[in-house]
Amino acid sequence: MKLTILGCYAATPRTFTNPTSQILDIKNRLFLIDCGEGTQVQLRKNKIRFSKINHIFISHLHGDHFFGLVGLVSTFTLLNRTTDLHIYGPKGIKEIIKLQLRLSNSRTNYGLFFHELESPESEIIFEDEKVLVKTIPLKHRVYTNGFLFQEKIGDRKLNLDAVQNYEIESCYYQKIKNGKDITLEDGRIIENDKLTFDPVPAKNYAFCSDTVYNEAMLPIIENVDILYHESTFLQSEGNLAKKTLHSTAKEAATIALKANAKQLILGHYSTRYESIELFKEEAETIFPEVLLADDGKSFEF
Amino acid sequence: MKLTILGCYAATPRTFTNPTSQILDIKNRLFLIDCGEGTQVQLRKNKIRFSKINHIFISHLHGDHFFGLVGLVSTFTLLNRTTDLHIYGPKGIKEIIKLQLRLSNSRTNYGLFFHELESPESEIIFEDEKVLVKTIPLKHRVYTNGFLFQEKIGDRKLNLDAVQNYEIESCYYQKIKNGKDITLEDGRIIENDKLTFDPVPAKNYAFCSDTVYNEAMLPIIENVDILYHESTFLQSEGNLAKKTLHSTAKEAATIALKANAKQLILGHYSTRYESIELFKEEAETIFPEVLLADDGKSFEF
Repeated sequence: MKLTILGCYAATPRTFTNPTSQILDIKNRLFLIDCGEGTQVQLRKNKIRFSKINHIFISHLHGDHFFGLVGLVSTFTLLNRTTDLHIYGPKGIKEIIKLQLRLSNSRTNYGLFFHELESPESEIIFEDEKVLVKTIPLKHRVYTNGFLFQEKIGDRKLNLDAVQNYEIESCYYQKIKNGKDITLEDGRIIENDKLTFDPVPAKNYAFCSDTVYNEAMLPIIENVDILYHESTFLQSEGNLAKKTLHSTAKEAATIALKANAKQLILGHYSTRYESIELFKEEAETIFPEVLLADDGKSFEF
Repeated sequence: MKLTILGCYAATPRTFTNPTSQILDIKNRLFLIDCGEGTQVQLRKNKIRFSKINHIFISHLHGDHFFGLVGLVSTFTLLNRTTDLHIYGPKGIKEIIKLQLRLSNSRTNYGLFFHELESPESEIIFEDEKVLVKTIPLKHRVYTNGFLFQEKIGDRKLNLDAVQNYEIESCYYQKIKNGKDITLEDGRIIENDKLTFDPVPAKNYAFCSDTVYNEAMLPIIENVDILYHESTFLQSEGNLAKKTLHSTAKEAATIALKANAKQLILGHYSTRYESIELFKEEAETIFPEVLLADDGKSFEF
């Protein structure tokens, strides 16, 4: 799993900082999470192949999380995209994009599918054989979801020496990888754990931005491997965080601790602070495994 | 008059090129012309004071000319703007901006006024004591206007030596600058041209993008000082220009020649060419005074 931060600063795009957008490469699926203004340029700078993005998840309809979407949708057309594109986001997102396409007298030359969200409960919004995505309802000034990206537990790994020893034909391999026992021609039953190793552990990633400190998300993100949690402010601006329904670095760390997360990535920084290291220092007083998001930075898990 | 090019490339924002946007500083008014994605970052990079922009002119509703507008409108709020903002553009622009503000549950804390255009004829859309702006109907795939920015002829310049010679009191100066003769206390009438010099000649600037080659604009831009005319293509792609309702460098130069413009600025380049110098070379075969727009470049007239 590889996470590339295209932008992780709050409010507006600036000369050297970009609003929220991330690329999650999970089981060879390339998911775009949020799409602030300038995201398509950030994709180019980070050499992400536009054509590999088939699913875009939008947390909420504040500009710093979606103003780059219509430009990206249009650019896909200019790039002669033909593959379907799926957009998951709050109700209203379809109207915003469709209105602008209509008024510019243009249409996409690919299938554009909107999956509008309005449930206050967590729900599964994407699932295929390898990955599952569910919403994490957040508490912000408008309807907002975080997203939990889960790898599914994969097939068991074949013990090649063992299957060759028992002279099992390759047509049975998938059955074995699925966990089944095997009956040999002489009638002996070989139990699956003699033929396989445990699968690679499945990982998951939770994206939580924007939100006020909100323990209601804990059951959904319990034991998560990597938690991205917004920290717009430091605790010195705790009142401002409460007022604007954002979080402090300390609050993000508290959520990570209570969720029993393995690692915490901070982001969505206000640009008022001298250094983003301050966020890490504050969070580490609560939770040890803190990483700092920054534009153009990648994390491999 | 000073023109700053924030972006002048066609189609999509890229790592090193920006879609259309310009700042025209005319008689101390700062006009923003078009607003492609990333314009607010370009404003910062070029050290343009956001608060001085009170009027934004949008040529047409193709993304590379307006996708940055909603972000700028939102950023003005974050910057605590209180001054009115006027937006001039095709019918529909108000709905696009208002919808996004509504769905993000936000409002501007300043007056936001839309002046929606739908006339196929040239019309005056802005006028104050020093400047007049009229539309230049263009021919493109959607309803499109260029804009002609005209300085009004200013006051006559006071001949200080002369007024002091005649011992004229300063309370009469404005009257003199307005072109009036003066009757002295002894009854002598002093004609205005003995008390003043001619005013600085008024200049004008025509912005024409996007458009196919279209002589219908000639009467409106006749004798213009500076003509910005799109040249998306070179003549070798003349068929493509016709098909997409864009112009070639040669066609832009032909318009400049026939309009008797003093100078031509080319822009809205397709990124398919190796160098924008090719546009200049082609245009100069028709019209001598050719300048090349480029992102971050300023022209003073």
